[in-house]
Amino acid sequence: MKVLVTGAAGMLGRKFCQELAAKGVIAGRKVESLAMVDIVDSPPIESPFATHSIAADLGAPGVAEQLVADHPDIVLHTAAVVSGEAEADFDKGYRINVDGTRYLFEAIRKANNRPRVVFTSSIAVFGAPFPETIGDEFFSTPLTSYGSQKAIGELLLADYTRKGFLDGIGIRLPTICVRPGKPNRAASSFFSGIIREPLNGQEAVLPVSDTVRHWLASPRAAVRFFFRAAEIDGALVGDRRNLSMPGLSATVGEMIESLERCAGPDRVKLIRREPDPTIMRIVEGWARNLDASRARGLGFEAETNFDAIVRAHIEDAGITV
Amino acid sequence: MKVLVTGAAGMLGRKFCQELAAKGVIAGRKVESLAMVDIVDSPPIESPFATHSIAADLGAPGVAEQLVADHPDIVLHTAAVVSGEAEADFDKGYRINVDGTRYLFEAIRKANNRPRVVFTSSIAVFGAPFPETIGDEFFSTPLTSYGSQKAIGELLLADYTRKGFLDGIGIRLPTICVRPGKPNRAASSFFSGIIREPLNGQEAVLPVSDTVRHWLASPRAAVRFFFRAAEIDGALVGDRRNLSMPGLSATVGEMIESLERCAGPDRVKLIRREPDPTIMRIVEGWARNLDASRARGLGFEAETNFDAIVRAHIEDAGITV
Repeated sequence: MKVLVTGAAGMLGRKFCQELAAKGVIAGRKVESLAMVDIVDSPPIESPFATHSIAADLGAPGVAEQLVADHPDIVLHTAAVVSGEAEADFDKGYRINVDGTRYLFEAIRKANNRPRVVFTSSIAVFGAPFPETIGDEFFSTPLTSYGSQKAIGELLLADYTRKGFLDGIGIRLPTICVRPGKPNRAASSFFSGIIREPLNGQEAVLPVSDTVRHWLASPRAAVRFFFRAAEIDGALVGDRRNLSMPGLSATVGEMIESLERCAGPDRVKLIRREPDPTIMRIVEGWARNLDASRARGLGFEAETNFDAIVRAHIEDAGITV
Repeated sequence: MKVLVTGAAGMLGRKFCQELAAKGVIAGRKVESLAMVDIVDSPPIESPFATHSIAADLGAPGVAEQLVADHPDIVLHTAAVVSGEAEADFDKGYRINVDGTRYLFEAIRKANNRPRVVFTSSIAVFGAPFPETIGDEFFSTPLTSYGSQKAIGELLLADYTRKGFLDGIGIRLPTICVRPGKPNRAASSFFSGIIREPLNGQEAVLPVSDTVRHWLASPRAAVRFFFRAAEIDGALVGDRRNLSMPGLSATVGEMIESLERCAGPDRVKLIRREPDPTIMRIVEGWARNLDASRARGLGFEAETNFDAIVRAHIEDAGITV
């Protein structure tokens, strides 16, 4: 299998590449090569197959054609401008998240080998007001440019799949938590920060109230989603190619209680409450709970309690508590 | 008021322009000028205000900027490649229906006068399977490229409105019936043909079964929708800028019964049944009935029985029955 990953230097793209290197197989077949694409060079990884890094701007015309010239069997498209940045820079968001995605799909169409394309969408395609639990047939009325761009990507993915130009599966990721590393420009960044920073002995800013409820999954779950989306039989999915991924619904207060259970009360004291009206307004428009029945029925699985997410992060980050 | 109409030489665009000329006012204010844009020249109309025709390709970069250079107050965007053609010519459909729409919205954004933009979407944004009656919060899973392109236009309209770049109202038109003139390349063309051609004493081909149920409104209703969408207070509509228009749900059999009641049994004999698997497959994926509560609550109104639609066509076409 030849695998192409866009956004390979990003947190999830990189975790997927590392897991692919560890497994050596995807969709039941041996991996032959991995192309890691990002706007910057992706750091090398140790693997039993050939890898190469390509630094390229997907939003520039003509770039995508080169990426798919060797006919990858599986394309994982995670490259994107994140929510906070897409909201601040309207043009950049559309250039990367819409034009970049369309260029990629067009290049794949022209390469004419119909690979499985796993597109990372987001629960940001949903916008308030919505029912307490969002069902699989609820409409997309995003309240951010990022969500609008992801919803457009979903429509393109489904139409290109229907026309036989590619074989797409779109997965609407929950907010991924706990993200390792530094805060990013996603408005959701604090959901990871309030766990990650205290575990590192650092102060974390909480810009919303403890009662905010949100839909979450771990980086490990996201990587499992990618592998499942890469292997699943398209016939089981049918025409509706975009799936809300499973996750767990937790309030900020419940997340902090988990942190205390897993790492003690001193860590919790490192969380400083500093309400930010802009982030509060964005987060108010976000999904709180989803009924991801379709995805669960198709074999996608996530954590069912937040303690498991905190413990996975403690383990992955090699933290002593 | 300066009014700009794209697709002004098309059936609905033209009817709107004629009605605008007859009224002389829109959204409670006097019309000062009307720009009629289409890929071909729009025939002149008699009006109490200045009109001019612009033949231009909206899918070509740079064209839209010229169209909005004089800062229209109201833009009615009906220009589109229709469903049958968008399905047959994938590139043309995306070029006109997606790129053309985006160029127009971008040009409006740059002109910076925030006009009311009325975008004609379609019930083709819905794709089977769906409930017998499609509610206002049902998701868009189009089964045609045309429907995908319209759904993308809806997302753009809502995002540009949310950002304050324009003041959009998207209206999902039912299938418009009875269309005057010749059949077009829309897969839905026969819905008009089976009424229009017999009324003209000509044979009509019916490519689907009599039990096919569909969601319909007259050209008169569509023009009323345009005027209502041009004048409605955006604050009443809120963030969800795309509305399923009211219509009536009728089977082909019921439509034919209406024709017989309005014009006699001899006309009905001119309908020749010739099943077309391609059209049957497309139509199977189409909406049969909608609960257009939101639009009705916002003052949009359509016919409630098909006899009224047939009689309106007989009157508009000046046919003696």
